[in-house]
Amino acid sequence: MFIIGELINGMYREVAEAIKNKDKGVIQRIAKEQVEAGSEALDLNCGPASRDPVGDMVWLVQAVQEATDKILCLDSTKINVIEAGLKVVKNKAIINSTSADKDKLDIIIPLALKYNTGLIGLTLDKKGVPQDKERRLELAAAIVADCQEKGFPLENLYIDPVVLPVNVAQAQLEDTLKVLLEFKIISQPPPKTVMGLSNVSQGTKQRSMINSTFLVMAVAHGLDAAILDPLDKYLMDSLITAELILNKQIYCDSFLQAYRKR
Amino acid sequence: MFIIGELINGMYREVAEAIKNKDKGVIQRIAKEQVEAGSEALDLNCGPASRDPVGDMVWLVQAVQEATDKILCLDSTKINVIEAGLKVVKNKAIINSTSADKDKLDIIIPLALKYNTGLIGLTLDKKGVPQDKERRLELAAAIVADCQEKGFPLENLYIDPVVLPVNVAQAQLEDTLKVLLEFKIISQPPPKTVMGLSNVSQGTKQRSMINSTFLVMAVAHGLDAAILDPLDKYLMDSLITAELILNKQIYCDSFLQAYRKR
Repeated sequence: MFIIGELINGMYREVAEAIKNKDKGVIQRIAKEQVEAGSEALDLNCGPASRDPVGDMVWLVQAVQEATDKILCLDSTKINVIEAGLKVVKNKAIINSTSADKDKLDIIIPLALKYNTGLIGLTLDKKGVPQDKERRLELAAAIVADCQEKGFPLENLYIDPVVLPVNVAQAQLEDTLKVLLEFKIISQPPPKTVMGLSNVSQGTKQRSMINSTFLVMAVAHGLDAAILDPLDKYLMDSLITAELILNKQIYCDSFLQAYRKR
Repeated sequence: MFIIGELINGMYREVAEAIKNKDKGVIQRIAKEQVEAGSEALDLNCGPASRDPVGDMVWLVQAVQEATDKILCLDSTKINVIEAGLKVVKNKAIINSTSADKDKLDIIIPLALKYNTGLIGLTLDKKGVPQDKERRLELAAAIVADCQEKGFPLENLYIDPVVLPVNVAQAQLEDTLKVLLEFKIISQPPPKTVMGLSNVSQGTKQRSMINSTFLVMAVAHGLDAAILDPLDKYLMDSLITAELILNKQIYCDSFLQAYRKR
């Protein structure tokens, strides 16, 4: 599982404060904690309160890459924010994200090609989030087709089926899992799959249990990557155990510790 | 999920002692605890140390049905032990279990028909436990075919793919999950599916985490029933959450407690 740590996000008060005060120490500590907990990439999101998202993204990228050389996942709906961040990224980046809208794909895919980044494609468009599996598949296929047309390598594309909260769209979650398998037959090579996991438990009172259980099910459906809280020990234990069961790491009595020592 | 509580088993010292001393109180307490924790059936196994398994099974059945009217799952490889138990069961019973061997099916299925019981069919035979999915499916199909031939209703048949411990047969676990879906296309109506869950973590040091993670994956693959420890709160929380995600119970903030109060 390719783990993208989600904690550098201005929706968290500590992060919003640090961005506002340009307090590198806080951001770099959160970056290091997430890397130590197993993140191979770090999501960077200035948050809804940012008054200067372009400047804040540039600052975030520079602060974080002083602390780690992990992949940076630039998280914004604004193309100028993404591009400003990409200009200062030293190592690898992922663009998080594009919708399936043709006008957005026409700008984002060339940007991803220019900066040689990964790309997260959400199965939603101007009409909103799909209500069923078929529409999710349709939108994923549209993103894949556009990548193929523009020569973007599909192994760098991550399709996200858009996970809705269990207390909002409970009946859709099973579809969201099953469609992970269907994304894999869209193309050869298939796109990778990713989930913004924490959304599944938004507004609930059992966040860790719901996140963990949903993640285990997603792993059983072949999920390649997840944007999650790597400091949730219970979540990470569940993930490590799920990978153990699927024979992705060799059993030893101390497999949980062994994974973390890698 | 149809939960069969596994704790009345002579392999546990407290139960073995209670059987030996004919101490009803201990057995009835364990029966009640498992029912309160959500078991719809209780497995009864005299254990390997029993010197009089026929007498002990009869005593166990009588002791337990004084405490609860839940379904009793008579667990023995010996046909005379099963039949002695069936003779004294007042409510419903399940025979746990038959192999796929023709000579065994020829005795057990008529017994299940005579006493109108459920039946657990293990996908193993005299050659042992299969090493792959194909052989599991083959043995399941043999059991189903024999039930059809003898007029045993398939909705009362539970096929168990035989879960091996992760530290013994790690590479087989994914097959054991996937074959659950394949059992469902053997016949119309399909057989039900069951797992003796705890075996997956036998001899490991993270039993609850491994059991819970494997169970969540099995639920995501449509498992109908499980023989498990219902007093493992973490396991039960995982199971309840898995069913929530699959929309089998309606979300409320206190869904864990709500399930338990049913």
